[in-house]
Amino acid sequence: MGTVPAPLARVIQELVKLPGIGEKTATRLAFHLSRADRRDVDALAAALGSLRDQLRTCSVCCALAGSDPCELCSDPQRSAEIICIVEETADLAAVERSGGFRGRYHVLQGTLAPLDGVGPDDLRINELLRRIGEGGVRELIIATNPTTEGEATALYLARLIKPLGVRVTRIAHGLPMGGDVEYADLATIGKALEGRREM
Amino acid sequence: MGTVPAPLARVIQELVKLPGIGEKTATRLAFHLSRADRRDVDALAAALGSLRDQLRTCSVCCALAGSDPCELCSDPQRSAEIICIVEETADLAAVERSGGFRGRYHVLQGTLAPLDGVGPDDLRINELLRRIGEGGVRELIIATNPTTEGEATALYLARLIKPLGVRVTRIAHGLPMGGDVEYADLATIGKALEGRREM
Repeated sequence: MGTVPAPLARVIQELVKLPGIGEKTATRLAFHLSRADRRDVDALAAALGSLRDQLRTCSVCCALAGSDPCELCSDPQRSAEIICIVEETADLAAVERSGGFRGRYHVLQGTLAPLDGVGPDDLRINELLRRIGEGGVRELIIATNPTTEGEATALYLARLIKPLGVRVTRIAHGLPMGGDVEYADLATIGKALEGRREM
Repeated sequence: MGTVPAPLARVIQELVKLPGIGEKTATRLAFHLSRADRRDVDALAAALGSLRDQLRTCSVCCALAGSDPCELCSDPQRSAEIICIVEETADLAAVERSGGFRGRYHVLQGTLAPLDGVGPDDLRINELLRRIGEGGVRELIIATNPTTEGEATALYLARLIKPLGVRVTRIAHGLPMGGDVEYADLATIGKALEGRREM
């Protein structure tokens, strides 16, 4: 049995596949689950078991969702004139939590990464072009990550879409709120200077 | 849908109940699971679903185990003359990983905690006395945690069992290997001095 009973070892073996969960954390979690309220363990097992069957990809914005079209795309309160482009549904959730955006979203499901063989056809760009082609879109806010791949993808989209007469903007880069100039990295300070605004 | 689709929200809601998993980690894990290999997600759900049905409590040593008696208790290679007392099965697994012990174990399933209403009858002490009564036990190594409750439990057990003619020992306390005297706490340094040995 190694050092852990087989049923626990199976749980540990599956938990260590998750990001940020090492063998020690997985062992602690498994022992916790072996003592926890049985209903909680069953609820977790059931939620995981039904996750993939219940998740849809929204055919409009390509986000992971519980329904198709997703609740955001079918919400008449949200402006269809402005679309925020994000890499993944997790990014959409983060922008949405900020509460600062009342338009629609489009999830690329990745970034351009030529070295990994990911080209424009592997992203949900055709779906985006179709949405723009249907008319009514005034502005695209590109909120891909400020990484090499995210920047390259933003540039590619801007070149592709500006000629269609749609305004294309990029989210601002600079010091994070609560951050410290002393400890900020050079690239962030450079971007913060470049993006300075009149007070 | 708040900011996250309902099937994901259910997974997040169950994950945050786990120790050391906050809302951000749970969200990251849930999004990871929504993209991960479906077989891995199903394997995790299945391992969790069967965990409680397949876990037994060993009727000899009271450890969580896949069988009763557990593999350690039914291993004829292990000495039945020496029993290591631990608080929880997780502690047993840790001692076993160290590879430094080839006797048997006994899991108390807790510690004495009068303030929380946990008395001797709530621990697996009667089961321990029965094992000692059956004869053949020469030594008990008490490996409860070096906390107030663990120390009190160790003292209680020593007073209870020494009169039965069994040698009772306590695992050593001192500086952890790789530790630093400068940063050790006072109680640990005190214990380390007290437990000093001839070189």
